[in-house]
Amino acid sequence: MTNIAICAPATPITREHAHALEDLVAAEFPDTNVTFHDQCFEREGHFAGNDLRRLTALLDCANDSAFDAVWFAKGGYGSNRIAEAAVAQMNDAARSKTYIGFSDCGYLLAALYRHGIGQCAHGSMPVSARSEGGRQAVRRVLQWLGGDNSGLEPSLDGKTPAVAFNLITLAMISNTPLMPDLSGHVVMVEEVSEHLYSIDRLFFHLAGSLPRIAGLRLGAVTDVPENYVEFGQSEVDIAKFWCERIGVPYLGRAEIGHTSANRVVPFGLASPSRAA
Amino acid sequence: MTNIAICAPATPITREHAHALEDLVAAEFPDTNVTFHDQCFEREGHFAGNDLRRLTALLDCANDSAFDAVWFAKGGYGSNRIAEAAVAQMNDAARSKTYIGFSDCGYLLAALYRHGIGQCAHGSMPVSARSEGGRQAVRRVLQWLGGDNSGLEPSLDGKTPAVAFNLITLAMISNTPLMPDLSGHVVMVEEVSEHLYSIDRLFFHLAGSLPRIAGLRLGAVTDVPENYVEFGQSEVDIAKFWCERIGVPYLGRAEIGHTSANRVVPFGLASPSRAA
Repeated sequence: MTNIAICAPATPITREHAHALEDLVAAEFPDTNVTFHDQCFEREGHFAGNDLRRLTALLDCANDSAFDAVWFAKGGYGSNRIAEAAVAQMNDAARSKTYIGFSDCGYLLAALYRHGIGQCAHGSMPVSARSEGGRQAVRRVLQWLGGDNSGLEPSLDGKTPAVAFNLITLAMISNTPLMPDLSGHVVMVEEVSEHLYSIDRLFFHLAGSLPRIAGLRLGAVTDVPENYVEFGQSEVDIAKFWCERIGVPYLGRAEIGHTSANRVVPFGLASPSRAA
Repeated sequence: MTNIAICAPATPITREHAHALEDLVAAEFPDTNVTFHDQCFEREGHFAGNDLRRLTALLDCANDSAFDAVWFAKGGYGSNRIAEAAVAQMNDAARSKTYIGFSDCGYLLAALYRHGIGQCAHGSMPVSARSEGGRQAVRRVLQWLGGDNSGLEPSLDGKTPAVAFNLITLAMISNTPLMPDLSGHVVMVEEVSEHLYSIDRLFFHLAGSLPRIAGLRLGAVTDVPENYVEFGQSEVDIAKFWCERIGVPYLGRAEIGHTSANRVVPFGLASPSRAA
C-alpha cells in the first residue's frame, strides 16, 4: 500500500478537485491511499492559507511516518516563501519520502534536492484530476509511485542525473539558498503564459548558473501571449542560442510542461520511487 | 551646447517619434542638439536590428567625442544581450559621457555603473515625446542635461548614492556580470504590467542581492493585470514585507515609473549632469 499525503504549499484547490482524484484512485489504484490535508482548501488572498499555515501543513505531511509520499496539490505561486523554513524543520520520516509536483512547487523540489531530502519528482498534480487529459497526467504519477515507470520522460537514461523545472521558477531559484548543485545534470525546462522575449530574458539570467550542466532539454512552451510584434525566434531558437552562448549542449525536447502530456522526471538518477 | 546622440539598444522607434522630440528640442531647448542614429528605425523581429547592429550603433554614439550624452530611444527588451560587449569596447570618450534611459535600458545603466563609465541616469526616453504627458517627462531629462535639477526625484539628498531600476530588470541583472555593487545605495524600483504575485516573486529573488543597501524606495507599480483572485497584499505591503524579511529599511515611495510623472535619478550621488 502506498500512502500519499496531499497539501498545498502555494494556492488552494477545491473539494471537487479532491473528489475527482479520490474517485480516480478508488477506481484504478487499489493499492494507493490519498489523504488530503484540510489546508488544501483554505484561502488567504492568493495563497492556500498564510505562510505559517502552509508551512505547518507541509511539515504535518512530510514529518509523519504514516505517509510514503507528499504530493503537492497545485502550483500557482507561493511555495518559495516557505521552502527554506520547510527543509530546515524536516525530520527522519521526511527524509525517506517521495515528493511530487511541478511549476511553482519547483521551489520545494529544489530545496529538498539541495538538502538531499527524500526522492523528488517533477510530475502533474491533483488539481489536474478533473479533466480527462489531466487524469492521464495524474495517472502517470500514480503509476510511477506504484513502481510502473511507463510514464517517465522518455529521454531519461538512468545514467545521467536529471531535473525538471518551470523556467521562471528555476530562474528565481538561481543564486538563492534554494538552488541545488546541478553540475552534470540534464536540466529540463518548460514554460507557460510567458512572452518569448521573457523566455529569452530568463535564459539570459540563468546563463551564469548553468555552465556545468550536462545539457539542456526544452519542454513544452505553451500559451505564449500574442505580442505587438513577432519575436523573430522560436522557443527552440532561443534555447539553442543561449546553450551555444554559454557552451552547454542543447539535447532536444522533453515531454514536460503545462499539458496533459506532462511526464514524470524523478530528480537525480531516474529510478522507481522509494515509495514503491 | 549639449550634443545628444540617440540609439536604440533594445526595440525601435519610428521617424514620427524622432520628429516629435526634434520639434520639442527646437522649440524649447535652443542649447541642445539631438542626433538620431539610423539604427533607431531598423527592425529585426522584436529588436531594433540584430545584436551586432545594436551594439555597433551604441558604440558609434558612446565612443564619439562629438557627443556629450547618449540617450536610449526606447526600452522594450534587448539591451541585456549587448551590455557586456558594449562596456568592454568603450573608449575614453565614452567614459566622460552621460547615459540616460530606464526600463529595459537598465541593463546598460547597470553595466556602465558597475564599470564606472560616465554618469548614468534613470530618465524617460525619446519614445515618449509624442504625447503631452510624455513630453513632460522628456523635458525633465533635457532640463537636467542643461543643468536644471528641478526634474530630479525629490528624495535625492546629495549624500546617499542612489540608483533606480525596473524591478524585473534588476532581478534579471542580479548575479550576472552586469550587476553593480549597490552597497550603501538607496535602490528605487518600479514596475509595469506585472501581476502582484510576480512582484512578490521578484523581491524573493532579489532578497539575497540587497542586504547591504541603504534602503528601498518603491516607484509606481502600474497596469497590474487582473488576476483570478485578489493577491491580498498591495505593492507597498509586498515591498515592506520583503524589506522587513531581509533587514533593509523601507523608505517610502519614489516618483519613478512608466508614467508621465517619471523623474530623473542620476546614479550614484545626485548631481547635475557632467554634460551640462
